[in-house]
Amino acid sequence: MMIYIINGPNLNLLGLREPAVYGGVAFSDYLNRLKEAYPGIGFDYFQSNVEGELINAIQEAGFSSDGIILNAGGYTHTSVAIRDAIKAIPAPVVEVHISNVHAREAFRHQSLLSAVCLGVIAGFGLDSYRLAVEAILSVKKEGER
Amino acid sequence: MMIYIINGPNLNLLGLREPAVYGGVAFSDYLNRLKEAYPGIGFDYFQSNVEGELINAIQEAGFSSDGIILNAGGYTHTSVAIRDAIKAIPAPVVEVHISNVHAREAFRHQSLLSAVCLGVIAGFGLDSYRLAVEAILSVKKEGER
Amino acid sequence: MMIYIINGPNLNLLGLREPAVYGGVAFSDYLNRLKEAYPGIGFDYFQSNVEGELINAIQEAGFSSDGIILNAGGYTHTSVAIRDAIKAIPAPVVEVHISNVHAREAFRHQSLLSAVCLGVIAGFGLDSYRLAVEAILSVKKEGER
Amino acid sequence: MMIYIINGPNLNLLGLREPAVYGGVAFSDYLNRLKEAYPGIGFDYFQSNVEGELINAIQEAGFSSDGIILNAGGYTHTSVAIRDAIKAIPAPVVEVHISNVHAREAFRHQSLLSAVCLGVIAGFGLDSYRLAVEAILSVKKEGER
Amino acid sequence: MMIYIINGPNLNLLGLREPAVYGGVAFSDYLNRLKEAYPGIGFDYFQSNVEGELINAIQEAGFSSDGIILNAGGYTHTSVAIRDAIKAIPAPVVEVHISNVHAREAFRHQSLLSAVCLGVIAGFGLDSYRLAVEAILSVKKEGER
Amino acid sequence: MMIYIINGPNLNLLGLREPAVYGGVAFSDYLNRLKEAYPGIGFDYFQSNVEGELINAIQEAGFSSDGIILNAGGYTHTSVAIRDAIKAIPAPVVEVHISNVHAREAFRHQSLLSAVCLGVIAGFGLDSYRLAVEAILSVKKEGER
Amino acid sequence: MMIYIINGPNLNLLGLREPAVYGGVAFSDYLNRLKEAYPGIGFDYFQSNVEGELINAIQEAGFSSDGIILNAGGYTHTSVAIRDAIKAIPAPVVEVHISNVHAREAFRHQSLLSAVCLGVIAGFGLDSYRLAVEAILSVKKEGER
Amino acid sequence: MMIYIINGPNLNLLGLREPAVYGGVAFSDYLNRLKEAYPGIGFDYFQSNVEGELINAIQEAGFSSDGIILNAGGYTHTSVAIRDAIKAIPAPVVEVHISNVHAREAFRHQSLLSAVCLGVIAGFGLDSYRLAVEAILSVKKEGER
Amino acid sequence: MMIYIINGPNLNLLGLREPAVYGGVAFSDYLNRLKEAYPGIGFDYFQSNVEGELINAIQEAGFSSDGIILNAGGYTHTSVAIRDAIKAIPAPVVEVHISNVHAREAFRHQSLLSAVCLGVIAGFGLDSYRLAVEAILSVKKEGER
Amino acid sequence: MMIYIINGPNLNLLGLREPAVYGGVAFSDYLNRLKEAYPGIGFDYFQSNVEGELINAIQEAGFSSDGIILNAGGYTHTSVAIRDAIKAIPAPVVEVHISNVHAREAFRHQSLLSAVCLGVIAGFGLDSYRLAVEAILSVKKEGER
Amino acid sequence: MMIYIINGPNLNLLGLREPAVYGGVAFSDYLNRLKEAYPGIGFDYFQSNVEGELINAIQEAGFSSDGIILNAGGYTHTSVAIRDAIKAIPAPVVEVHISNVHAREAFRHQSLLSAVCLGVIAGFGLDSYRLAVEAILSVKKEGER
Amino acid sequence: MMIYIINGPNLNLLGLREPAVYGGVAFSDYLNRLKEAYPGIGFDYFQSNVEGELINAIQEAGFSSDGIILNAGGYTHTSVAIRDAIKAIPAPVVEVHISNVHAREAFRHQSLLSAVCLGVIAGFGLDSYRLAVEAILSVKKEGER
Repeated sequence: MMIYIINGPNLNLLGLREPAVYGGVAFSDYLNRLKEAYPGIGFDYFQSNVEGELINAIQEAGFSSDGIILNAGGYTHTSVAIRDAIKAIPAPVVEVHISNVHAREAFRHQSLLSAVCLGVIAGFGLDSYRLAVEAILSVKKEGER
Repeated sequence: MMIYIINGPNLNLLGLREPAVYGGVAFSDYLNRLKEAYPGIGFDYFQSNVEGELINAIQEAGFSSDGIILNAGGYTHTSVAIRDAIKAIPAPVVEVHISNVHAREAFRHQSLLSAVCLGVIAGFGLDSYRLAVEAILSVKKEGER
Repeated sequence: MMIYIINGPNLNLLGLREPAVYGGVAFSDYLNRLKEAYPGIGFDYFQSNVEGELINAIQEAGFSSDGIILNAGGYTHTSVAIRDAIKAIPAPVVEVHISNVHAREAFRHQSLLSAVCLGVIAGFGLDSYRLAVEAILSVKKEGER
Repeated sequence: MMIYIINGPNLNLLGLREPAVYGGVAFSDYLNRLKEAYPGIGFDYFQSNVEGELINAIQEAGFSSDGIILNAGGYTHTSVAIRDAIKAIPAPVVEVHISNVHAREAFRHQSLLSAVCLGVIAGFGLDSYRLAVEAILSVKKEGER
Repeated sequence: MMIYIINGPNLNLLGLREPAVYGGVAFSDYLNRLKEAYPGIGFDYFQSNVEGELINAIQEAGFSSDGIILNAGGYTHTSVAIRDAIKAIPAPVVEVHISNVHAREAFRHQSLLSAVCLGVIAGFGLDSYRLAVEAILSVKKEGER
Repeated sequence: MMIYIINGPNLNLLGLREPAVYGGVAFSDYLNRLKEAYPGIGFDYFQSNVEGELINAIQEAGFSSDGIILNAGGYTHTSVAIRDAIKAIPAPVVEVHISNVHAREAFRHQSLLSAVCLGVIAGFGLDSYRLAVEAILSVKKEGER
Repeated sequence: MMIYIINGPNLNLLGLREPAVYGGVAFSDYLNRLKEAYPGIGFDYFQSNVEGELINAIQEAGFSSDGIILNAGGYTHTSVAIRDAIKAIPAPVVEVHISNVHAREAFRHQSLLSAVCLGVIAGFGLDSYRLAVEAILSVKKEGER
Repeated sequence: MMIYIINGPNLNLLGLREPAVYGGVAFSDYLNRLKEAYPGIGFDYFQSNVEGELINAIQEAGFSSDGIILNAGGYTHTSVAIRDAIKAIPAPVVEVHISNVHAREAFRHQSLLSAVCLGVIAGFGLDSYRLAVEAILSVKKEGER
Repeated sequence: MMIYIINGPNLNLLGLREPAVYGGVAFSDYLNRLKEAYPGIGFDYFQSNVEGELINAIQEAGFSSDGIILNAGGYTHTSVAIRDAIKAIPAPVVEVHISNVHAREAFRHQSLLSAVCLGVIAGFGLDSYRLAVEAILSVKKEGER
Repeated sequence: MMIYIINGPNLNLLGLREPAVYGGVAFSDYLNRLKEAYPGIGFDYFQSNVEGELINAIQEAGFSSDGIILNAGGYTHTSVAIRDAIKAIPAPVVEVHISNVHAREAFRHQSLLSAVCLGVIAGFGLDSYRLAVEAILSVKKEGER
Repeated sequence: MMIYIINGPNLNLLGLREPAVYGGVAFSDYLNRLKEAYPGIGFDYFQSNVEGELINAIQEAGFSSDGIILNAGGYTHTSVAIRDAIKAIPAPVVEVHISNVHAREAFRHQSLLSAVCLGVIAGFGLDSYRLAVEAILSVKKEGER
Repeated sequence: MMIYIINGPNLNLLGLREPAVYGGVAFSDYLNRLKEAYPGIGFDYFQSNVEGELINAIQEAGFSSDGIILNAGGYTHTSVAIRDAIKAIPAPVVEVHISNVHAREAFRHQSLLSAVCLGVIAGFGLDSYRLAVEAILSVKKEGER
């Protein structure tokens, strides 16, 4: 089983950037812990600040993995193009957010992506990613039945 | 450890109502499975179609449980009073939705509750509740450290 | 044949409240006349000021009657939860209003319920209820053909 | 007693046009049945695709008939001029719609005419016209008392 | 000198319709008085309830008269097509209204025509037409200098 | 003289809930002080989290008391049904708020109730209730003259 | 007979300011011509850039003159206070504009004053003032009959 | 093969009206050239300033031609009734505009018709009509395969 | 103890202006009664129609009095500058309105000042001022404790 | 003669992605057919998912080709930067869409690019590109005359 | 060379008012430093809380100085009249703000003045004024070349 | 001291693109002059049309320079992702614009970046960059004190 985690703009700064909002742990450290916790799953990881490279990654992962965990950062609220990419692929996509986007600025309350994702998980810090893994596992199991 | 699950209007019809959207399983059956899966957790459950009775339950659970899993159904989009109740209590509240509310009617895209909840999980069918349990467990563990 | 009439908030004051808008006849008097006019139909009647109790009644009537005549009063314009209840049941629901809601305050021009009802009848005073009975009869007849 | 039925744009195609929405019966056939059902009433009928000819008809009928049943079709949502015509005449006007306009596109949810009509009947197929006849009869009877 | 007065929908009812708002004088009577008051001016008059016939009249008058006095009635607020006609002709157009449209319903506060007219005169009863004649005379005199 | 104080959702938590916003005194304590300060007035008190029970109370008090002091809490901003109840009764209603609702979230800036109340008092902590008593006393005195 | 002309902000620059929009004639010159044209009328004139001084002038003129011609300039679109002043006085007020405000920036399309004025005249250059004199004369004559 | 070209309001002035926007060629001249260029196609042509006559033409052409090229002029932005006519007929409709409507006033940016047309061609002057012919030819050819 | 009452535009007309809305008593008469009722308090009074002079008064009173009672009239709904003045001073400001502004025109429903005032009292006629005095007294007493 | 075709995000998936909406043909296949059909024209082709690379391509093509055919995909609705690029170059740009964007989600109805393009062609499947070639040819021919 | 600095409402309180937002230095002190830093420039200074007096000052300075530095304070967001004054004068106006208005309340994000000023400088504390001096100097130099 | 200048999309065309709006000087020429004027400052320069590369540059410069001068071009109005990058770094960012964006299209009036920048300078041509250098110098000096 193969899960692709795709992180959008500024998530490369995790641990450095506004720790009050995003926590003090770098994503690579968190990813290692996740891999340990789910030894039976292969994890691919990609981060980019470039909207189009995220689309490239979604297109690639969308035809080769069992599920995508996508934190599109600031593009969540503005990108019709990423929405189109998600809609164009067969793999299920789970939208995650580290912070509770609904408790922040008004322009973060609306997501262009949610409607074409399988579901949304937001507000649980980095644990949002683990919950997304759980969600994909569960969906797969159901599909196999 | 004690988790309170509170379901809002029409969720008593689960299994009967629009199975294409909400699935064909009654909530009581699902709850039993959840209890089996987490034997170390006590689960309280309350359902009501009355907004004010949900507020009563949130107030009660908010001072006596370790976390609330709230599916406020149609009140999610209209109730300032439930929002005020969530803000008034110390227990963390996880907002869950069975369906992907963002892929449905426009008036379901906005939640008055999200901003005062710990986080949101939407779109994974009844599995959304299990993910919420996982989220509360994780928050508790972190708090204990 | 069984028709369920459900009246929402403040309709218990009919005859007392703003007679210029709502007329001077109490609903119980009107209901008796209606029963006389349609001896072949059984009429159930429920009134409540509590949104959730209206939902309870809709759920109950929705599985046991041939049609519901619903005047949701002020909840017409604000209740996603009642809308969900209507959508969850098999019985057809006719939305009625005593006054012409479109000739009153702007917030009364929009109904959250109309889209999930069979149809709408508004502005004919208490006669709106009789027209709704006629509409349900006609729908039933057509269904039987 | 004289009732004037006025149908707006595209209602001449009834029976041909989108039968899933508007049914498969031509209006002339329906009108004949209506005349049979109410032998004591004289029915005048007018259909036009031209907004101004509808206004002409409303002005004429408004001073010569006991009531107007108006299905203004697409002009319902855009015509201040028809609204002004309705307001300028003494005869009561009942707004009817074959389909449930509130369950269709957003621009059909708002009527410029409702506020100046006696009442609105929508969503009962061609039976909406019969209900409107009933409503006018009832209003007349009340007026005579 | 030739002035063309064009009246839109429902203005044929002047004197009959809502006298509290529009006064009790028929337009033909008023027009006669106007002709007497300005013996040196030829007056053409056209009224129609049909939007397109008003456009026809504007097109014709726009190339043959010295000025148009236009009361487009309810089309004032909805007709891009009349606006286009006004913009397409060389003759100056003065927009007039009998009532003070700004003191009435909100949808009457916005005019699609004003921006392409020479000017607007509203609220002086039928005297608005005489003021418009004065305005055209004055513009002509200036142009001749 | 009889005054009815009606408190809406979450006001039962007063003294417990967000003391920075709502103060640290329970309403029952405050009510006792109020009774002492106005020995000549009978005070009835009702609190509920259920919108419909508040409507019940308003209907009852509206025909039996000299004035109602209403803090509808979160329902202030969403309840057409409570507005209808206030409009349906003869007793004057004073809308009170403990906090300055205009200095808080945008959705608290608009009240559906103010337009049908006698007046509004907001922002003076629990003292808002005493000012409301003063206002009702003054209105009564004027009425008697 | 006494008419009060009140000019608002920046109209003291007439003749200097944007001649393409406002013309090249100073208002004092125009006023002299107006006085000559109407020898039987007394004209008072006031200009100020200060909103409150305009209100003072409206209050004074409103109780001592037969009519006010008001060009409130930029305050037309923003001043509730001037609107209140107009509503508070018995004298009729005619709102005038030199330019066609509807053909300019969007924020000039809405007037807070029109609804409480007798009528509006806009777009005829300085001639708008003469037309306003004509309008007041006509209203007076009608009142005398 | 039969193509019906329908032109809306003010397009009869082509060549006269605002040549900077619409060019200096009359439509009849252009039509002749089009007929020469496509000798195998029969062209019907209809122009009217009357909204309802355009609907009549669309209804007629919609059941008798292979495709309609529609330039609804100002009605493009306001006519629900024309939209309904297009939806009611089997023939494909191509919406054309001579000018680039998106580069003009804001109210021209929205078309009520586009959503029910086969496609849209705008901004290429009269050549927009030829491109529409090409589009219909291509659609027909594909249909025949 | 020193309280400063500041009245905005058109409040100098109290007793003259729209008595149905504002009552028939001049403010000076009311002020005398207020002084008698509270002999221990010094009252300063200022009225102006000029927005900036109100700001001057607020600035002065804000550093020299124990509280300001402000009825900013029409400026309530438009003045960011008065809001800034209120925010810039240490003295508490109570916003008062004679009429129930929420029951009047829509543009009176929003106050730019409320958010920076201590509280709001509206709708009790001139008695609103006395209630404001009571509110300031109470706040002072609490502060002294 | 040189035409540059620029395709935006997700158009590399053509033939794979949502064939019901976008058809089952890969763009490279279509391009070959286009080249065959227009042997006298050189075609350059560029596709990227990266907004900025599309801008690079527009800048390059804008100074070196005779016309650009641009399908900006999801960026059509969100990119001020691409709009600026189009405005900055001398070559004419034709905006094309494969699907009828106006018949899809609301956020696809508005294009930020149309206003600065020569024209728009939408809804004819891949044939939209050929029509764009026709349009550019025609514009060139006219320019040469 | 002559530069006129015009400060709007509440800027006389600089140093006293909200020092966290506006700093603790009085403007007179800052102005002296500015004069020392630019000995070759004559500085005129005017502050008023009265909108109309600011207009007077802008009109005067606009014909007698080489440039105006305008901090219109709260009037920035509401004054069409000041905008008109700026547009009416030949001298260039630089809009300055001490605080970053875009990081504050939403109603401060929109300026009615920016569009008619030469440019805007905001957010650099009192240093914004010096940068404005630099900007005017640079513009003058360019003009002289 | 180190200042990083970052230019967004289409600013590489400076000198070529719309010289009436942006001037005729290439940015490299301007940059050389700037370096000469401030010999004590090191200037880094980066331009890209790719949103994500701008984010990369902001992230890099944000931890290594003393200040960033950012002209994000068209992304100013659409990029939440760039806003997040600015908020994530310690270095102060000054937003600059060559043209007066407030005097152009409406969609250029709103900046997503201003609220998280130190300040904004707009409208002074390329001189805006020099003023930004001055602003950063001044901020640094103050910080050192």
